[in-house]
Amino acid sequence: MAEGQKADGVASIAMATDEDNQVVNPWEVSAKDGGKIDYDKLIEKFGCQRLDQSLVNRVERLTSRPAHVFLRRGVFFAHRDLNEILDVYERGQKFYLYTGRGPSSEALHLGHLVPFMFTKYLQDAFKVPLVIQLTDDEKCMWKNLSVEESRRLARENAKDIIACGFDISRTFIFSDFDYVGGAFYQNMVRVAKCVTFNKVVGIFGFTHEDNIGKISFPPVQAVPSFPSSFPHLFAGNDNLRCLIPCAIDQDPYFRMTRDVAPRIGYQKPALIESSFFPALQGETGKMSASDPNSAIYVTDTPKVIKNKVNRYAFSGGQDSIENHRKYGANLEVDIPVKYLGFFLEDDEELEHIKKEYGAGRLLTGEVKKRLIEVLSEIVERHQKARASVTDEMVDAFMAVRPLPHMFS
Amino acid sequence: MAEGQKADGVASIAMATDEDNQVVNPWEVSAKDGGKIDYDKLIEKFGCQRLDQSLVNRVERLTSRPAHVFLRRGVFFAHRDLNEILDVYERGQKFYLYTGRGPSSEALHLGHLVPFMFTKYLQDAFKVPLVIQLTDDEKCMWKNLSVEESRRLARENAKDIIACGFDISRTFIFSDFDYVGGAFYQNMVRVAKCVTFNKVVGIFGFTHEDNIGKISFPPVQAVPSFPSSFPHLFAGNDNLRCLIPCAIDQDPYFRMTRDVAPRIGYQKPALIESSFFPALQGETGKMSASDPNSAIYVTDTPKVIKNKVNRYAFSGGQDSIENHRKYGANLEVDIPVKYLGFFLEDDEELEHIKKEYGAGRLLTGEVKKRLIEVLSEIVERHQKARASVTDEMVDAFMAVRPLPHMFS
Repeated sequence: MAEGQKADGVASIAMATDEDNQVVNPWEVSAKDGGKIDYDKLIEKFGCQRLDQSLVNRVERLTSRPAHVFLRRGVFFAHRDLNEILDVYERGQKFYLYTGRGPSSEALHLGHLVPFMFTKYLQDAFKVPLVIQLTDDEKCMWKNLSVEESRRLARENAKDIIACGFDISRTFIFSDFDYVGGAFYQNMVRVAKCVTFNKVVGIFGFTHEDNIGKISFPPVQAVPSFPSSFPHLFAGNDNLRCLIPCAIDQDPYFRMTRDVAPRIGYQKPALIESSFFPALQGETGKMSASDPNSAIYVTDTPKVIKNKVNRYAFSGGQDSIENHRKYGANLEVDIPVKYLGFFLEDDEELEHIKKEYGAGRLLTGEVKKRLIEVLSEIVERHQKARASVTDEMVDAFMAVRPLPHMFS
Repeated sequence: MAEGQKADGVASIAMATDEDNQVVNPWEVSAKDGGKIDYDKLIEKFGCQRLDQSLVNRVERLTSRPAHVFLRRGVFFAHRDLNEILDVYERGQKFYLYTGRGPSSEALHLGHLVPFMFTKYLQDAFKVPLVIQLTDDEKCMWKNLSVEESRRLARENAKDIIACGFDISRTFIFSDFDYVGGAFYQNMVRVAKCVTFNKVVGIFGFTHEDNIGKISFPPVQAVPSFPSSFPHLFAGNDNLRCLIPCAIDQDPYFRMTRDVAPRIGYQKPALIESSFFPALQGETGKMSASDPNSAIYVTDTPKVIKNKVNRYAFSGGQDSIENHRKYGANLEVDIPVKYLGFFLEDDEELEHIKKEYGAGRLLTGEVKKRLIEVLSEIVERHQKARASVTDEMVDAFMAVRPLPHMFS
């Protein structure tokens, strides 16, 4: 799975832009004329559904706990068949979660953590098993990494993922280079048989000059949607439903998967999809692997975080204190407020900051100060958790093994 | 690997015909204007070398045994780098053999046995390990068989292959659905990275309407050429050379493989390539899966063999006994003589038959009678051998295991 937030300059292929010049696919995310992504248009174009308040309420009711910040604040804003998953759950049946990451870099940034933080919440709230795919094969092909380097990055990234707190008794992490084969490969062939070259050109924008590894990759990301790809977990449970939390740029993979599923006798996976985590330079910018100052990395020190937020976080405040007191901050474009929207859990405090800042009574510097505290705490907590992840733990999470208590 | 002799009506894709209308690729073999395959043209077009008498002599000298009938009579008529393999062998180093079969049908015909009979000879003569790939994934995609049916056919075909007498201490048989994964999959990705869609269109004639499973299959057949695809056999022996005995229609796969090999730091495989086994109806006809009378199957009874040869084997004899005595048989088109050329081991007897038949002193019926004896004996021997192949033996040949004595 490619990361939800795209790095710059890595897309060797690009889906044909639609009439409004907005491009969202697993390898490129760019808005019309360098503006903001129009998520309403995306929902319409992709044909998914908006995740409305009644669905959030239903999740809270079924799980007997408050919805995650990312859910109640609309970070996860779209879905496919989430209602069916909740129907199944309400009838006392379970489902499983599937998410992933393309291990293209050593260090993750906060945007990379978003789907994992949310998936951990879903796992805890619904008490369901989870499979996490590390697409080291994908990154080997798209980023021209060696097999060995891709595999090394997969294990490094696995440590960051494990540090998010997943329950080892319900979680199977696998890398494609390790796990592809057997039932998984058989499902890859079943899917590949149903998808023509023309079809993947239409969905992913592949060209004649793309290598056949890329062209044949979509089934690899498709088949974890099917329980029969994991006989050690789900043998005899072929109708188990699958829910995929991911950023919406991954939707093309699962549109393809959902198209194919009934043709090979399988259930369609359901999806719950997030918007993109913005770059420090603003929602119209992109986080760039070649510009470390465009994102907060989980390896950043408090000093680096402070410096990045103060120097680079795009401010919606006015250009002078006088004007700011007079007109207030433009919250629509203000990155500190947006980041607090992701990571400040206290709804009341967030509302207070937005109100005071928007009215000009709080200054940018004060909001940034609070953001630096919040981010430093998250990053420090992550670093501590990651430091305690041993190679043996990685082996344990990645062992092909039954999970006898995964539904209890 | 697709079978050497093509069945009719199965090619969903076809390589663009060259100027002389001769088409030879893994899915289609057809000569210009329905005539005979021009093997000289094929050698020139593919860029392989003719296997000349000096090379046959060298094989005899190095192995201290007479060359196999298929070698001394030119059934295996072309090669790539066979001289290098013999250089290596002469220096006291070993190599390994790789051949395969696409398990598309229950029963094999004699044409299917040709590469296996020859490979067994090579294994015995050079005392080298052998890997046999059963491309059940390929047949699942090309023949639209279910995964389960393809796997079943792979095991059934494995029994016929084992019945050819391979040495279990030097032979690893694997099906793609079972074995793809790990080091093998890693090599698939390494190869796929080097091959564009345009490239496979040029080599194999794929179209936009072909499914991506087909488009991504060539690396699956490529990577058994590399010893690192078999860590349980060749760990630490990355420079071991590979020799592939196959019918020449498989050459496109290995042209691609040889093109890619140096780019990923691997040795090019060498090849020894056969002509096609003719249909009973004549060299201009094709053996057809939909016409059981076009071939002798290893399941045929003596009565069926007798009937097929007498009724369908295309004769080069004249239309009346008078004319036959006068003009003699046309050996160039006579199928009984061609089949005897494959399966009658006694060189002197074969020469005698050709001389007498060509001079009109032997009649077609008499030649057919001898052919029926020869074929019945081969088929009967095969049936006995196959009946003694148990499921446990199949499991043993297909077990992923080291072969400690494979070079001795």
